[in-house]
Formats: sequence, structure tokens, C-alpha cells
Amino acid sequence: MSKKLRIVPIGGLGEVGKNMMAYEYGDNILIVDVGIMFPENDMLGVDYIIPDFEYLIEKRDLVRGIVITHGHEDHIGAIHHIIEQIPAPVYGTPLTMGLVDVKLARNRMSGKADLHTVQAGDKLKIGPFDVELFHVCHSIPDSIGLGITSPGGLIVHMSDYKFDHTPVDNWPTDYAKLAEFSQRGVDVLLADSTNANRPGWTPSEMVIGPALDKVFEEAPGRIIIASFASQISRMQQVADAAVKHGRKLAFVGMSMVDNSKMARKLGYLDVPENTLVSLEQALGMPAKDVVLMGTGSQGEPSSIIGRLATGTNRHFGIKPDDTVVLSSHPIPGNEESVNKAINNLFRRGANVIYDSLMPIHVSGHASQEEMKLLLNLVRPKHFVPMHGELHMLKRHALLAEEMGIDKENIQVVENGQVVELKDGKLSLAERIPGGYVFVDGTSIGDVDYSVVRDRERLSRSGIFLIDLNIDKFTGRLMHNPEIITRGFASPEEAERLIPMVEKKVNDIIDGGMDDQKTIMNAVRSLLYNETKRKPMVFVTLSKV
Amino acid sequence: MSKKLRIVPIGGLGEVGKNMMAYEYGDNILIVDVGIMFPENDMLGVDYIIPDFEYLIEKRDLVRGIVITHGHEDHIGAIHHIIEQIPAPVYGTPLTMGLVDVKLARNRMSGKADLHTVQAGDKLKIGPFDVELFHVCHSIPDSIGLGITSPGGLIVHMSDYKFDHTPVDNWPTDYAKLAEFSQRGVDVLLADSTNANRPGWTPSEMVIGPALDKVFEEAPGRIIIASFASQISRMQQVADAAVKHGRKLAFVGMSMVDNSKMARKLGYLDVPENTLVSLEQALGMPAKDVVLMGTGSQGEPSSIIGRLATGTNRHFGIKPDDTVVLSSHPIPGNEESVNKAINNLFRRGANVIYDSLMPIHVSGHASQEEMKLLLNLVRPKHFVPMHGELHMLKRHALLAEEMGIDKENIQVVENGQVVELKDGKLSLAERIPGGYVFVDGTSIGDVDYSVVRDRERLSRSGIFLIDLNIDKFTGRLMHNPEIITRGFASPEEAERLIPMVEKKVNDIIDGGMDDQKTIMNAVRSLLYNETKRKPMVFVTLSKV
Repeated sequence: MSKKLRIVPIGGLGEVGKNMMAYEYGDNILIVDVGIMFPENDMLGVDYIIPDFEYLIEKRDLVRGIVITHGHEDHIGAIHHIIEQIPAPVYGTPLTMGLVDVKLARNRMSGKADLHTVQAGDKLKIGPFDVELFHVCHSIPDSIGLGITSPGGLIVHMSDYKFDHTPVDNWPTDYAKLAEFSQRGVDVLLADSTNANRPGWTPSEMVIGPALDKVFEEAPGRIIIASFASQISRMQQVADAAVKHGRKLAFVGMSMVDNSKMARKLGYLDVPENTLVSLEQALGMPAKDVVLMGTGSQGEPSSIIGRLATGTNRHFGIKPDDTVVLSSHPIPGNEESVNKAINNLFRRGANVIYDSLMPIHVSGHASQEEMKLLLNLVRPKHFVPMHGELHMLKRHALLAEEMGIDKENIQVVENGQVVELKDGKLSLAERIPGGYVFVDGTSIGDVDYSVVRDRERLSRSGIFLIDLNIDKFTGRLMHNPEIITRGFASPEEAERLIPMVEKKVNDIIDGGMDDQKTIMNAVRSLLYNETKRKPMVFVTLSKV
Repeated sequence: MSKKLRIVPIGGLGEVGKNMMAYEYGDNILIVDVGIMFPENDMLGVDYIIPDFEYLIEKRDLVRGIVITHGHEDHIGAIHHIIEQIPAPVYGTPLTMGLVDVKLARNRMSGKADLHTVQAGDKLKIGPFDVELFHVCHSIPDSIGLGITSPGGLIVHMSDYKFDHTPVDNWPTDYAKLAEFSQRGVDVLLADSTNANRPGWTPSEMVIGPALDKVFEEAPGRIIIASFASQISRMQQVADAAVKHGRKLAFVGMSMVDNSKMARKLGYLDVPENTLVSLEQALGMPAKDVVLMGTGSQGEPSSIIGRLATGTNRHFGIKPDDTVVLSSHPIPGNEESVNKAINNLFRRGANVIYDSLMPIHVSGHASQEEMKLLLNLVRPKHFVPMHGELHMLKRHALLAEEMGIDKENIQVVENGQVVELKDGKLSLAERIPGGYVFVDGTSIGDVDYSVVRDRERLSRSGIFLIDLNIDKFTGRLMHNPEIITRGFASPEEAERLIPMVEKKVNDIIDGGMDDQKTIMNAVRSLLYNETKRKPMVFVTLSKV
């Protein structure tokens, strides 16, 4: 009798199985990826989000290994949180492990993880799981997909990928391996759904070269290129353009500098010694001889580009002849901040090149035609779309249906919904508890939804504090109420309102109603009647 | 000697001249449009934004008239604020005036404006300005562009437009009039830049018909269509599909109901009496016989769709066989809330049709090829791109340059930057002061950037209040500090922190340092050291 093979997407809302996925067979667990999520616009004050992996902590002794598919933050970013709780061996390709190393070092955890550097093509024995690693193209080199064989069946785990025929590192996705799996019979395919709404085929990374050439030819002064700190392929393309056009290249910002150093050391980034200069050197050179590369393609206020846009960068500012290249596409939710950064850079006199002007960025994810190719290459019996919001998963499922996969063999699930494969049948099992775990300062999970909701309430109309001291013998106020207000009214409006509040409070207390609640409610309705706004009202009251 | 003709885009940041534009010649002012802006994600708690028209209030007696180009909120939404300050006659086409009427009624200002209903083709004499109104296609019927002739020159003001050859109302943009202007010689063209980054030609409204047909054919149950309350053309298309497929149509929500009534009365919306039903009637009918149309295509929490997505609509909820159609494209900044609504509707079992699945929406704005056609039809001497963020204006300017307009004859300006035409030359004049005017509750402008910044600070890490009473004779605390905290920490974390704070405060006071500032700073650094978060700390202290 065969045992169940369980597919367990960890975490609450968020993209299914993107940040963390677990496969269970008997008393054995294999974890794939340990990433973070970025907070949405209404998750006020939250730094980042990690998967809620409580379920795995209880079963920590059953975890046989952690395999990481590639080095982006949404796949490695929670590594230091996970290995503190789950001391399992971690496997990844050289560049991925290099980025893990940098991350652990920055969190003062170097040497605290059991790291194993492996290669695409390797076959790992992790408990009952035979894990075959195969190369895939993505927007970072050294990415892999996984073929996971256990007595429960063969699963193909296709994390972020695209079918780029002309990738920067000349290493296409391993079509042969995917076809080989299909020969053996794939029980379940799980695959990236990020671009499920995008028709056609994602353009090759190759198109960026000519676009960068044009920028380098036409830029009258400095070139400043923004990307993610982990976009090693983009760094290579910028370095190539710098060599070709005789400019010196400086990486700007700690994460960019650290990652480029590591990637050069491991041989994933090829920049001639005499092309690379420090930021200080670059700033001393003629503008036409220089290209700077830093973070901020999402308009993040704390990034290099974010600071240049607002004029708050310490080391240098925007000059009128600068050409700024935003080499990325806005992540959903970031469109407004990206647009704002672009407008501000223009306002400061720079020329700004963004992706609708020129192909200076391409997606790292497969579009619909590639998804169809994957389904036809792998020809799985069952399909579980992953890595996407619910509407993208639904779309991906529809594509699979259109290609002839039986509707009942497709499961669209969200994080926490366990799927089981047993006796050749895929079915829904229990939901495991789980939600977001907010990381805010040193708090991991302490700042929860109720705290964020309070922040939302504070931000809506501000606060109004009243401190009262009542003489316990006379029952009268000992002095005028002390009133503090923030985020509620302008000083002029407050000046008009405060005497009204003071009078109201005096009247209530003189009327013998001296409890906090009565005063709070009265002040609330007075403020609402006067302004149609509802600040949070607090009353502190001492009888002395 | 000729006098100057001044082009004055009113307001602060925001899309140039979109919400309000003024033209000045001598002691005469013509205002075009009086719209509102919607707050950005970081304008916490703000309801909406009106242009800062202080400049015009000072010159109110010189304002000869207000012409409104069409009935969308970003062109009419501030009408009640403006006419309270500037009692000038208001001109617009019948549908536009109908929407103005509804808006004034809702703000209890019916009959308080001097409204003049005019027609495309009319020529108005407004002070020294001869204003020729000509029809343009847009996503609302009865839209117009303006040819403004004064002794200062001929200006063509091309507000929101597209060149739709097959519009819903069979009334294409008035090409002949544009060509006629060019014969006369256009001194300055100002034109909509919304889609300046979009190559090609915006699809005709006509493509929506077949897409709606497909939806109506395939929907197994109710159809719920979301749009804007002012999308009268979309209402017509939905009504046509309802008639064709034998469904009854109910408009849902006050603004949808009011606007559809008015548009039917004025003859802009043609729905047979027996097709239209009330929401109550619709809810009592078999699901397959019904189509509902309401607001919420932007995922706004308070709209019908927003409430259906979160399960908080009072009159009805989502049922598994429902088909929800979001007939609009997310406005920049709304992508996240739209995605969230789509995911939530799927989660509740509905099928959701959004614009990347099917052409159930097309833009109302011209794309690049249409912009080129406009420039060639009008052949202006000078060009001022308007209606767009700075990066769109820059792109529009680049298009004009590519088409042979001299770079020095193009002015890319932002709101508040006055442009002057004198002796055939266009040049920059002064900047008039101006910014956003936030409307929040009954406050118009009282809630300003400093208040919004405070809200942002409150929302980042919450608040921490300490109320102290010190015995003025002994210098000691009379009771334990009263502590209130919101949006800072979970109850468990607060329980750990509060005793530490109490001890710290006691130590400080026992040490004889009993001023608010010392205590505030000490608590701040204690909380930061413990949590790496920085709540706003408030100390109220009485010596009694």
C-alpha cells in the first residue's frame, strides 16, 4: 500500500508556495525555498513578512533538508529566521549559496548554517526524496528546478523560470531533463504563475544589450542604472556595456557592492579590473566616463534612486546631464512610488529611461506560450499552479485545462491548503493554520494584524489626548485639561476646537459625570460634529 | 502692441491643467474645468483633493466664465467648492451639465450656480474670448474640446480625447474643426498626455460589444458589472447586451442610479422600460435573468464591488455562479487594491473577468499614433502637453519634437508655472503659489501636508502615552504611571515592556529629573533598544 505524498504550501496569504513549500512523505519533510514577502501598502510600518512556518517547527525533527531554487529575496530572505528554528542541511547552487552567505553574514550568523553547495545536474538523496536539480533560466544566474522522486510519485517543482533561448550566461533551461521526466511519467507539476495573464513569450535577456548600447551612446553625462541588488545578470550586461563604451563602472550601496564582489569571486560576474572603480573614484572623474549602478528600481525611499529622487543622498546628487535608467518593471503595488521617483528625477533635471521607453528590462518569468510549452514538455498527470496571486493561479489552471489536462486533476489552492497525492489521485487535505508573520524592528510576529489595524486607525484621522486632574474633594478640575493632538487638525483649526473641548469637559465634570468613558464619547462626538473626522480620543484622568 | 495671453495651470502637483486651467488676456480670465484629484496611497485619511485656486480668488472679479469639457469627476468634481468662491457663469454640454446638477444637488447647492447648457458647434463669447466648442470622443458622451480665440492668439485646448472611428454614440471627434483651426493658424495647442507612453492607437469602444456578448452567453448565473458612475457609454453597452440576451438590468448604488436616471431623461442612455428593474426586483429573479451594474472597478473598499469582495455588502453577497466583470483599467496607484478585490471575489466563488482576460474595457485616451494625428491635424506653432504626470508630458513633448515642432516652441510645465504668449513667442512667466488642498471631512485645506506627515509618523510604529502625577511636596510619583499604547506592540509584548518603562520612569523621578522631555527621551530610547521601533511617545505630567 502506498503512502501519501503531501504538498504543503507554507504561510498565509501571499503567493502560493513561492516563499516556502514543503513536501512530506511518511515521517520525512523536504523544504523548498525560504523567502520573504514585501509588505503591501496597507501593512503600515511593517519591514517585511516571513512565512508562518509554525507547522514545520512542530515537525522540525522530520525535516531532512532545505533546497533553495535561486538567490532572490523572495526565495532566500528568511534563511536566518528558518535555520534558527529548523537545523536542517541547506542545499543550493554556488551563486545562491553565495547570496545566502552574504545574508547570513549581514545578520551575524555566518557559519551557523549547514550549507551544501551543489550543481544543476546533481542528484541529492534527502531522506526518501531523490532530488534531481536541473538548470532553468531566470533573471538571476544559477537558478534550478527540481525533480523530486519518492515512493509517493514524481513531482516536478518549477520555481521561477523562463524559456530564454539566448540568456546572458548562454545556459538555456534544461529542456532535455524536462522531457526525460515526461518519459518517466510526472505525477504532479507545480509551476510559476507570475505572468499567467501575459500572452506570448517573454522577450530574451538579449534584447537589453542593444537598448543599453543606445543609452550609452546617447548619454551626454553620467549614467546611473537602478536594479535589484541580486540582479547579477543585469550587472553583467551593464559591465559589458561599460567595457564596450569605455566607461568606468562603480557599484553603489552596500548590498550591490557585497553581491557584486561575491559574484565576481565565484565567477558569475566578469568585469575587467580596470573597468571597476569605487564610488569615490567615479565621482572624481569626468561625467562622460562613468556609469554608476545601485538599488532603487522600485522607487523605494531608502534606496539610492529613492534618495536621489528626493535629493537626500549623502554622497552625490542628480546633475542636469545625468541619465537615469530604471532597469526593472514595477512590482504590483509599487507603480505609484516608481512613477513618483521618475517624475522627481525629471524635476531635478535628469533624463530618465524607464521600461515603456526602451527595452531596458525584461521579465524573468515565463509568459503564456512558455507555460504551454512547459505543460507539453512535462505532460504531467496532475497540475498545481503556484507562485502567483489567486487570479493568476486561476488563469494558469485555465491554460492547463485548455491544453487537455482534466479539470479534476488540477488543484488551485492557497497557502496553508494541503494537497495529497495517494493511489494516483490528487485531493485536498486539511488546511494548516498560518498567516503572515510581520517582521518589524526586532519583533518577529509580535506586530500582528491587530497592531497594523490600530496603525491604520491612527493614520486615518490622527489622535486627540486629554489629560485631566480632578480634585477628589471638590470634584472639580485642578487645572485646564492638557490637550495633545497629532495628525488631526492644523494648528489654526486646533486653536478653534480646543476651547470648545475644554468647555465641554468642564461642563461634564461640573455636571458630576467624571468618568473617562463619558468624557471620551462627548469629545468624540463634538470633534465629529465640528469636522466630520474621527480621531482616536484618549482621556487620562487622575483624582488627586 | 499686442497684449500677453497667459496660460495658467492651477494647483500644485498633479496632472497639469487637468483639474483646472485658466487663460488670461488683459483683465479677463477664462477657466476650463473644475475637477478633483484622488489622494495617493501616502496621503493618509484624505478624502479627495481640490486644486489650490487662491490665485483665482484674488482675481475673482476678472473671471468671465467657466467652461467644462466633460462630466468626469476629475473635471467637474470641485464645482461646488469653486462656485462658492467664484460666481461666474458655467458652460457645458447637456450631459455634462446633467452631471453637474446631480453633484450640486448632492451637496445641497441646487440652483446656486449660473449654469448654461451649450452644444458642440456653439461659439461662446466670454469676455474677449471667442470659445468654439467642438465634439471629441472620450469614455463619456458629449465631451468637447475648445478653440479659444482672443486678440492674444488662437489656442486649441484638447482635453481628454481619443480618435475613435466607431464610438458607441456614432459621433466621432470633429476632425474638420481641427483642420479648420490649422487653416487659421493655431498659436498654441494644449493636449491630453495620459497615454503618451502607449504606442499605437487606442482600441475603439466598439470592441467591448463582442466581449460583453461572450460574457453574457457564457455566464451561468448573475452578471455583476463594475464601472465608474459616470461611464454613461459603458451603461449603454451593458443595456444593449442585456436587451440582446434577454436579461433585466438593475443599477446599484446611489451615484449609479442618479446618473443613469439623469442620462435617460436627457436622452444619453437608451434602455427600454421593461429591461430596467430595481435592485430589489432583480434579487428576486432567477440568477440567469439578471445583470447588475454598480461602482467599484478600482477596488475601492466603500464601493459595491469593494463590499462584495469583503463580504460586507448589506443587500446581497457573492454567490458561486456569479460572474463579476471589472470594466475598467486600474488607475495608477490602485493596482494593489484592484488585485486584492479580484482575488477576494474568486475566493468567494465568483468568476471574475478583468481586462487582461478579455477586452471588457478600453482606454478613453489617445495613444501615440492618435497624438501624432492630432499634431498633424492642428499643426500648431507652439505645443504645451497637459493632463499627465511629468514623465508623460516629457514623452508627449518628445513625440512633438520628432514630428518637427521646434524644441524651443514646446514648453513642458507643471501646475503653477505660468506660460505667456506674446508677439508670437511662448515663454515661461512667474510661478504662482499653490499646492494640494486636501478635503477631509468638512475641512477644506485645514488638513495639510504637515498633518498628513504626522499621520504617517503615527502609522509607522504607533503611539505610547504615559500619564504621570507627581506629588509636588515629596517629588515622588503619586501612583503607577498610566500607560496607553496603540499600534506599537502586541498585548504580550506590551506586558513585557510596560514594567520596564515603569521602572525607568520611577528611577528618573527618584533621581530628581522630573521634566517631560527627559522622561520622553528615556522612554523612547528604552523602547527603541528593546524593539528597534520608534513609536511616538507622549508624556503628560502634573505636579499636584
